[in-house]
Amino acid sequence: MIIEQVHVTPVAFRDPPLLNAAGVHEPWALRTIVEVVTDEGLSGLGETYGDLHHLGRIRECAKALIGLDVHASNTMYARISAIAGDTRTDLHGLTGAATKEKNVDRVFSPFEVACLDIRGKAAGVPVADLLGGKVRHAVPYSAYLFYKWAGHPGEEPDRFGAALDEAGIVAQARQLIEEYGFTSIKLKGGVFPPDQEIAAIRALHEAFPGMPLRLDPNAAWTVATSIRVGRELDGVLQYLEDPTGGIAGMAEVAEAVPMPLATNMCVVTPEHFPPAMASRAIGVLLLDHHYWGGLVRSSHIAAMCDAYGLNLSMHSNSHLGISLAAMTHLAAATPNLTFACDTHTPWQDGQDVVVPGALRFVDGAVPVPDGPGLGVELDRDALAIMNEQYEKCGIVARDDTSYMQRFDPSFSARRPRW
Amino acid sequence: MIIEQVHVTPVAFRDPPLLNAAGVHEPWALRTIVEVVTDEGLSGLGETYGDLHHLGRIRECAKALIGLDVHASNTMYARISAIAGDTRTDLHGLTGAATKEKNVDRVFSPFEVACLDIRGKAAGVPVADLLGGKVRHAVPYSAYLFYKWAGHPGEEPDRFGAALDEAGIVAQARQLIEEYGFTSIKLKGGVFPPDQEIAAIRALHEAFPGMPLRLDPNAAWTVATSIRVGRELDGVLQYLEDPTGGIAGMAEVAEAVPMPLATNMCVVTPEHFPPAMASRAIGVLLLDHHYWGGLVRSSHIAAMCDAYGLNLSMHSNSHLGISLAAMTHLAAATPNLTFACDTHTPWQDGQDVVVPGALRFVDGAVPVPDGPGLGVELDRDALAIMNEQYEKCGIVARDDTSYMQRFDPSFSARRPRW
Repeated sequence: MIIEQVHVTPVAFRDPPLLNAAGVHEPWALRTIVEVVTDEGLSGLGETYGDLHHLGRIRECAKALIGLDVHASNTMYARISAIAGDTRTDLHGLTGAATKEKNVDRVFSPFEVACLDIRGKAAGVPVADLLGGKVRHAVPYSAYLFYKWAGHPGEEPDRFGAALDEAGIVAQARQLIEEYGFTSIKLKGGVFPPDQEIAAIRALHEAFPGMPLRLDPNAAWTVATSIRVGRELDGVLQYLEDPTGGIAGMAEVAEAVPMPLATNMCVVTPEHFPPAMASRAIGVLLLDHHYWGGLVRSSHIAAMCDAYGLNLSMHSNSHLGISLAAMTHLAAATPNLTFACDTHTPWQDGQDVVVPGALRFVDGAVPVPDGPGLGVELDRDALAIMNEQYEKCGIVARDDTSYMQRFDPSFSARRPRW
Repeated sequence: MIIEQVHVTPVAFRDPPLLNAAGVHEPWALRTIVEVVTDEGLSGLGETYGDLHHLGRIRECAKALIGLDVHASNTMYARISAIAGDTRTDLHGLTGAATKEKNVDRVFSPFEVACLDIRGKAAGVPVADLLGGKVRHAVPYSAYLFYKWAGHPGEEPDRFGAALDEAGIVAQARQLIEEYGFTSIKLKGGVFPPDQEIAAIRALHEAFPGMPLRLDPNAAWTVATSIRVGRELDGVLQYLEDPTGGIAGMAEVAEAVPMPLATNMCVVTPEHFPPAMASRAIGVLLLDHHYWGGLVRSSHIAAMCDAYGLNLSMHSNSHLGISLAAMTHLAAATPNLTFACDTHTPWQDGQDVVVPGALRFVDGAVPVPDGPGLGVELDRDALAIMNEQYEKCGIVARDDTSYMQRFDPSFSARRPRW
């Protein structure tokens, strides 16, 4: 099964004004859709970031893969490494610093997923079966809460409305849980002074007794603040995610707070693993196949976490159905991924590039598509519309900070902030 | 592709009187051949240890896999874990202590290999392609030298003759290199007092200048002896393998000697990895899919070694062609496996359960069989003969020590010995 064509299509879809430590989500979120087509006419799908610089790397690397067999992962990785192995980045900074390895892993990922999709289709099995087989039939996701404005400035409020205090956050949780059935909750923090976010977590704890809660301020806090918040939320949080920046800082916090620390910021490539383990900086790793180099490399990381007694959850950026399918197959085939995964899916509110029906939420979990492959099919009309949106939207790289500064010129994304 | 039948066949083949720290190889070496057959009539091969207790576990677990899909690795592992997860063992002690995890991994391995063989056949690709694809077309192996008697007591000398001093070892190296083209050399030590083995290594160094050399005394030495030998062989050894027992002892030696230490004894399950890394006990891990839980789990370990900057080689026990094929596919698809692998193949001297022709040595390396699957085919006549040999040979578990004591009642396998 030789790769004959690779189609790379940037897309944009509407995104609500979700607040975070870097600023606020712009009206359009970007992704890149990769379609790999073999000489036998089988095609596979991958999805990755849409930022212009990354898109350029994806396009350049796509050409270098023509003529390779879909099984030739090692060769693909080597070719991509030769092209994309620099450290320039236009990443938004919410998933840690750029490194050569991370750039290569990020570029490799959508091609690897697309090739697994093809291999699954050829073998007549779901992608989960290429990763060791399902250990769970449905993958639980968490309700991913955000402080948010009612709508983008100058627009009508969106259907979720504002969430700028604990009452708004609890209402948002109720809405997402009602619509999706989620059984755990994550709050994106780092937006308001820590005491306000502590109050929001306490309000969630009261409103949803016993429900696992997580708080992720994206390294907006100092070590001292992180320790104070961690101690105040003893018995309330399942885990505290990236309270402060860097492995050393996280290790200091981890030693002083009662709950495990999770990260998708300080351990984002294999080279971060040894120092993080040596300093006991984290107790939970948030896997993300988009930057861990695809599904198989993510399963290597999962095995490493198992050897080191780390727990696993899954990180998410704004994404569409191809990614949700890939995340679901990976999580379903990863025995030690026992925490509910993150997903931005509710915020896409039905917008997608895949034909509806294959992906659904049942009691907060996504049943693994039966496949073959990823089990999702490209909706070519939707893809064309979203590509048109990309061309027209005027955004070429995610920049939550500048967008925020248009409305609040005094805003600074400096971290730690508190 | 549902598993419909699993055939488990113990075999015995002639083994020369190879000496090691535990004693001497008996006249017959044992293996178990596993053949998995699917509902569609595809079959796959695996090979594992032949000791009676292990054979019993293999037979018991084989039954538990009937009805599973060949992709369902995680479920197979869980079922085997439920059956084989005890710590009894009849291992010969040359690959470290028994643990629950190691028992499960050892039992799981031949089934996993057989299922990959089937999956490769179904997809029309070599097993290496299911592991990321070849990064090398042929896998280099080392000349695995042993001190040995001329023949088993009471028998004619075998064609390799005696090797009981440095001259014998050099002659053996010449013979193996002439016949196989090996470009690196490993000497099994722990047989004679260390100074004799140092002399043998020096003689090899003189006879084969520039050729990478390794010495493996199977933990026969104290820490002090290990340090002395390591320092004396500075600039001569590529690595020193398991000079002493245990992670703590290895760490002490590693700090004091100039060359990296390798192991297939103190790091043999994932749980050994963190303490070994924390204490910098080793620089080279010898992978062995027979006890690391098959090929995919071995590739997880390889990724972990990559993250930790460990180098990789490959361990071998006496084995036949199914194992050689599996080892070759794994090594070919593992980018960071850069040292020549160990193999006992020359000592089997043509005896095999696979149809001749698929496996050959070219300049000391085995070209990856083109497949599909493992690329080897069961020779049913040879299997029947070897099974008959098993039934007749009277050996049910490897016991190098008792066999040695028949000829030298004073022999003790106590380690450390020097």
